[in-house]
Amino acid sequence: MSIFHGLSAFPLTPADAAGRVDTGALSRLVQRLVEARVGSVGLLGSTGTYAYLSRTERRRAVEAAAECTGGRTPLVVGVGALRTDAAQLLARDAEAAGADGLLLAPVSYTPLTEDEVFAHVAAVAGATGLPLCLYNNPATTHFTMTDALVARLAALPRVAAVKNPAPPSDEAARHAALRALVPADFAIGYSGDWRAGAALLAGGQAWYSVIGGLLPEPSLALTHAALAGETAQVAALEARFAPLWALFQEWSSLRVTHAAARILGLCDTALPLPIQPLPPSLHPRIEAALDALA
Amino acid sequence: MSIFHGLSAFPLTPADAAGRVDTGALSRLVQRLVEARVGSVGLLGSTGTYAYLSRTERRRAVEAAAECTGGRTPLVVGVGALRTDAAQLLARDAEAAGADGLLLAPVSYTPLTEDEVFAHVAAVAGATGLPLCLYNNPATTHFTMTDALVARLAALPRVAAVKNPAPPSDEAARHAALRALVPADFAIGYSGDWRAGAALLAGGQAWYSVIGGLLPEPSLALTHAALAGETAQVAALEARFAPLWALFQEWSSLRVTHAAARILGLCDTALPLPIQPLPPSLHPRIEAALDALA
Repeated sequence: MSIFHGLSAFPLTPADAAGRVDTGALSRLVQRLVEARVGSVGLLGSTGTYAYLSRTERRRAVEAAAECTGGRTPLVVGVGALRTDAAQLLARDAEAAGADGLLLAPVSYTPLTEDEVFAHVAAVAGATGLPLCLYNNPATTHFTMTDALVARLAALPRVAAVKNPAPPSDEAARHAALRALVPADFAIGYSGDWRAGAALLAGGQAWYSVIGGLLPEPSLALTHAALAGETAQVAALEARFAPLWALFQEWSSLRVTHAAARILGLCDTALPLPIQPLPPSLHPRIEAALDALA
Repeated sequence: MSIFHGLSAFPLTPADAAGRVDTGALSRLVQRLVEARVGSVGLLGSTGTYAYLSRTERRRAVEAAAECTGGRTPLVVGVGALRTDAAQLLARDAEAAGADGLLLAPVSYTPLTEDEVFAHVAAVAGATGLPLCLYNNPATTHFTMTDALVARLAALPRVAAVKNPAPPSDEAARHAALRALVPADFAIGYSGDWRAGAALLAGGQAWYSVIGGLLPEPSLALTHAALAGETAQVAALEARFAPLWALFQEWSSLRVTHAAARILGLCDTALPLPIQPLPPSLHPRIEAALDALA
């Protein structure tokens, strides 16, 4: 089992209005994940608002999280940045601060070509000795990694896994199509909480999970059932997640998870403006969704 | 005539591989625009790769450009950033360094809501005493400003103009639809070089131009003909631009303009990686396109 298998749980990164990370609150979130025995902690993912944090604050976050994981739980750190040299620096920072693996999204402003993303990933993968997971998230990076590009990248040293958006349909065929193009030890995992169960049942090896960063126990139960092929158990668990998934799809998983963390007393910081917190009028619905998972 | 009328010419921002701005090369580009008497210099737009430059380097670029424009040509400066506080700081920096106006794109990573963009723009517009142009560029920001949102924003103090993508069709109807929603002194201008002529003939008041930042004379001729409603003259000029427009559409206006600047001996710096320069095999075609405008 590589560090890119099982439940990869993505915590929020609590920070003040000026973008200074609250390492105490972050440590409490990470500690919950370590104690629940998640497969890995996915620090500074999209849920961890990495794109909104400075290099200094990202380094502080990794140091705080590494102190919690302490070799017990793999720590995978998002190092995406618009510039290649910036992403390389972030990767070296993460390695020095105790990361076990990297997660690299091809963040873009000017739309990028496949060859540009290939060279970008190669440069970042070559900057450290850590294994790297490709972070394919077209909704935020605005670049879609095709299967053909993933296969090219999978041949590079240290490029060990991909986090793909869970397909909306034809999961088995789409998983098999990529599986046929990559080495046997290359791990294929999925994000998109409400579609992850089906993607894991279809062969996915990891769930890169937003809610796993806040509620690791039910998320681990779903992961284990799906990896074991227990279709009925997956359906039963997903029924309990359904009210939360509906909120995620309507209001975004980041905003809903942030509100849920506040409701649960796990975090009292803001999101980075311009991203606004959800209105308190939604809290009763979020509380009910959390109750369904309690 | 406000500073948001006529040809707004967007120069490249020459910088070394580490992102340090070559202020000498930038000054030479800006000087050409001042001498040609463009309507405004659009510094640090998408063509000026603002998203890839640090706050320090953006400030150095504004200072260098302001020394060239020196009150003779309005200097409009892009202050887009993912964080609201960062964009406010950039706006204050630009004002202190001599900008005459601001250009604000709602840069996003997490997809934003209309209310979030409204609050973001209001905060940045309130940070200085400068007039501000809304920079509606869905291809890079991944947020589309609807006419309704532009109208809400146009009611804010200092929000004086919009740079919209030139519509692919129905220019007159679409221009009139927005015109009906905004104050009479709110300026509506267009970007997208190969469609700007039609958009100005349909009532647009400004051309936010990539090629105008490199070749101001033919771009001014096209702007003046379009603003004067000289349809035949616009068509004749656009025929000369056609080979270049074709390259822009195929290879992106940023990459083609960068190669053209190198061919013309105006800039010998790289683009910020991961963005790569065009292969030299394309240079003969770019040279031919430049010859058609000489």
